[in-house]
Amino acid sequence: MNIGIVGLGLIGGSIGLDLRSRGFNVFGVSSRQQTCSRAQARGVVNEASINLSLMAAADVVFICTPLLSIEPIVRELVPYLSPDTIVTDVGSVKTPIVQAVSPLWPNFVGGHPMAGTAESGIEAAVPDLFVGRPYVVTPTAQTPPRAVDKVEEIARLLGAKVYRCGPIEHDRAVAWISHLPLMASATLVAACDLEGDRDIVNLAQNLASSGFRDTSRVGGGNPELGVMVAKYNREELLRSLSIYRDCLDGFISDIEDENWQAIEHKLKLTQQARQNYKL
Amino acid sequence: MNIGIVGLGLIGGSIGLDLRSRGFNVFGVSSRQQTCSRAQARGVVNEASINLSLMAAADVVFICTPLLSIEPIVRELVPYLSPDTIVTDVGSVKTPIVQAVSPLWPNFVGGHPMAGTAESGIEAAVPDLFVGRPYVVTPTAQTPPRAVDKVEEIARLLGAKVYRCGPIEHDRAVAWISHLPLMASATLVAACDLEGDRDIVNLAQNLASSGFRDTSRVGGGNPELGVMVAKYNREELLRSLSIYRDCLDGFISDIEDENWQAIEHKLKLTQQARQNYKL
Repeated sequence: MNIGIVGLGLIGGSIGLDLRSRGFNVFGVSSRQQTCSRAQARGVVNEASINLSLMAAADVVFICTPLLSIEPIVRELVPYLSPDTIVTDVGSVKTPIVQAVSPLWPNFVGGHPMAGTAESGIEAAVPDLFVGRPYVVTPTAQTPPRAVDKVEEIARLLGAKVYRCGPIEHDRAVAWISHLPLMASATLVAACDLEGDRDIVNLAQNLASSGFRDTSRVGGGNPELGVMVAKYNREELLRSLSIYRDCLDGFISDIEDENWQAIEHKLKLTQQARQNYKL
Repeated sequence: MNIGIVGLGLIGGSIGLDLRSRGFNVFGVSSRQQTCSRAQARGVVNEASINLSLMAAADVVFICTPLLSIEPIVRELVPYLSPDTIVTDVGSVKTPIVQAVSPLWPNFVGGHPMAGTAESGIEAAVPDLFVGRPYVVTPTAQTPPRAVDKVEEIARLLGAKVYRCGPIEHDRAVAWISHLPLMASATLVAACDLEGDRDIVNLAQNLASSGFRDTSRVGGGNPELGVMVAKYNREELLRSLSIYRDCLDGFISDIEDENWQAIEHKLKLTQQARQNYKL
C-alpha cells in the first residue's frame, strides 16, 4: 500500500518514519524544498516533492498541516486522486474540518492522533510517537465504512489506541480536557500579571514552585495554538468556559460566605473525580 | 544550641533530621506516643515526649503543626519557656498566625519553609528537604531583630534561600502562586464533572493527557489543605480570585466577539510573563 503525507512536520514526519519501517511506500509533500530534502535524508519518506501531483500514487493520504490549510489543500489535491483514495487529517478540532472537507471528497475520514512533543518540524519527527496514545477517528453517517476501517487499521499499526466518535463529540471532549485547561491556565498567568505591587510580583516570582509551574504550563505555551483552538472550537470552548465560570463563582461565593463545609465537599468531589481520568 | 520541635510530621521531622546532623540537640513533641518513638528510632530527635514541658530546654522552638493548632499550642507552651526562647512556626499562611501569636510571645517570628513532598507524617521526613527551597521569614516592626536573625541563620543552615517580608506581603504572594492556582485547578475538575453526557465524560477521561494532568493536579489534591488556605488566607484569595474572574471574563468576551487578535496578544503576554517565574 502507498501512503501519502502532506505536511512533513512532527506528526507527518513521525507517521512517515513508522509506516516506512512497517514496509509501506511513503510519499511526502511539503511546501518547502528544504523540508523535502531533510525528509528524504532522515528516511521519513521514499520520495518527497513540493508538488501535490506526487499524491496520485497514494492509496491513503494523511493531511498533516495546520488546521487553517487542511481545506485549501484538499481542494488542490482532489484533481490528482483516484476515486478510491482515502484522505484523512490529523487536526486537533474536527467539526469544522469534517464539515468543510467531506463535501470535497466523500472518502474523507477525520482523525486526531493525540501525541506530540514540545518540538515541531521535520527534525522533531521520531519513531513510535503514537504508541499507547489515543487516536480519535471521527466518521459521519455518510463516511464509507471501508475508509474508516482503513484509517483505524493504520492507527493501530502505529501502536495507537483507537477511539471512534462523531466530530461534535470529539470537539466537546477535547474542549474539556485540552482547550478549557489552556484558557484556565492562561487566565492564571494573566491575572498574576495584573498585580500592581512590584515587590509582591518579585516575591511571587521567586516563591513560585511546582503548583504554579504545573497549573500555568499550558497557558504559557504557544500563542498561535491557543488562538487556533479558540477559533476552530469556539462553540464548545465557550460552552465549557461558561460552566467553568459558574463553578468559579460558586467557589468565590462559598469563600465569601465562609461556607467551609461546602468547599470541603466540593474539593472532596474534585479529588475523587480527577482519579477517573486516565492520567 | 538546643532546638525544640512541636509536631513531628514531614516538615518538623525533616528539620530535626537536618539539625541533628549539624550537631544540634533536638527535642521533639508529638501528641502521639507512637510518633515520639518513631522519631527517636529514625534519629529525628535526641529525645521526644508527648509533654510540652520538654520544650523548657529549647533555645529555639519550631511549631510544625497544622495552622489550626499553632495558636493553642503556643498558649500551652508559654509557661514552660524562658524569656529568651525564640518561637517560630512553619505555617503556610502568616497574617492570622502572626497576629494571634505575637501578643502571646514577643520573641515569635513567623516562618514558612516552602518545601514538601506528596507524603506526610514522620515516616515522610527526609534529609535536605529545604536545600535550595525558599524559606520566608515574616517579622513585624515589633519582632526583636535578634530573633529574626536567629531563625534566618537556621534556615540558611538547612540550605534554604531566605526571603524576608511582612506577613501581609507573604500572604498576597502565596495567594497568587499557590492558593489561586489551587482554586483555578479545582474549578477545572469541578466544571468537567458537570458534563451531563456520559459518553463525552468517558471519552474525555480516556483522552486526557499531560495538559489536563498538570492543570488539574493541585485542584485534585488534599481537600483539607484547600479548605485551610481558603479559611486562613480568605481575604487575599478572594482578591486574587476576583482579578482572575475579570481576566476570565475578558477571554470569554474576546472569544464571543471573535477578537482573535486580542487573544493572540494576551497569550503572547502570558507566554512572556510566565518566563519571569523561577520555575
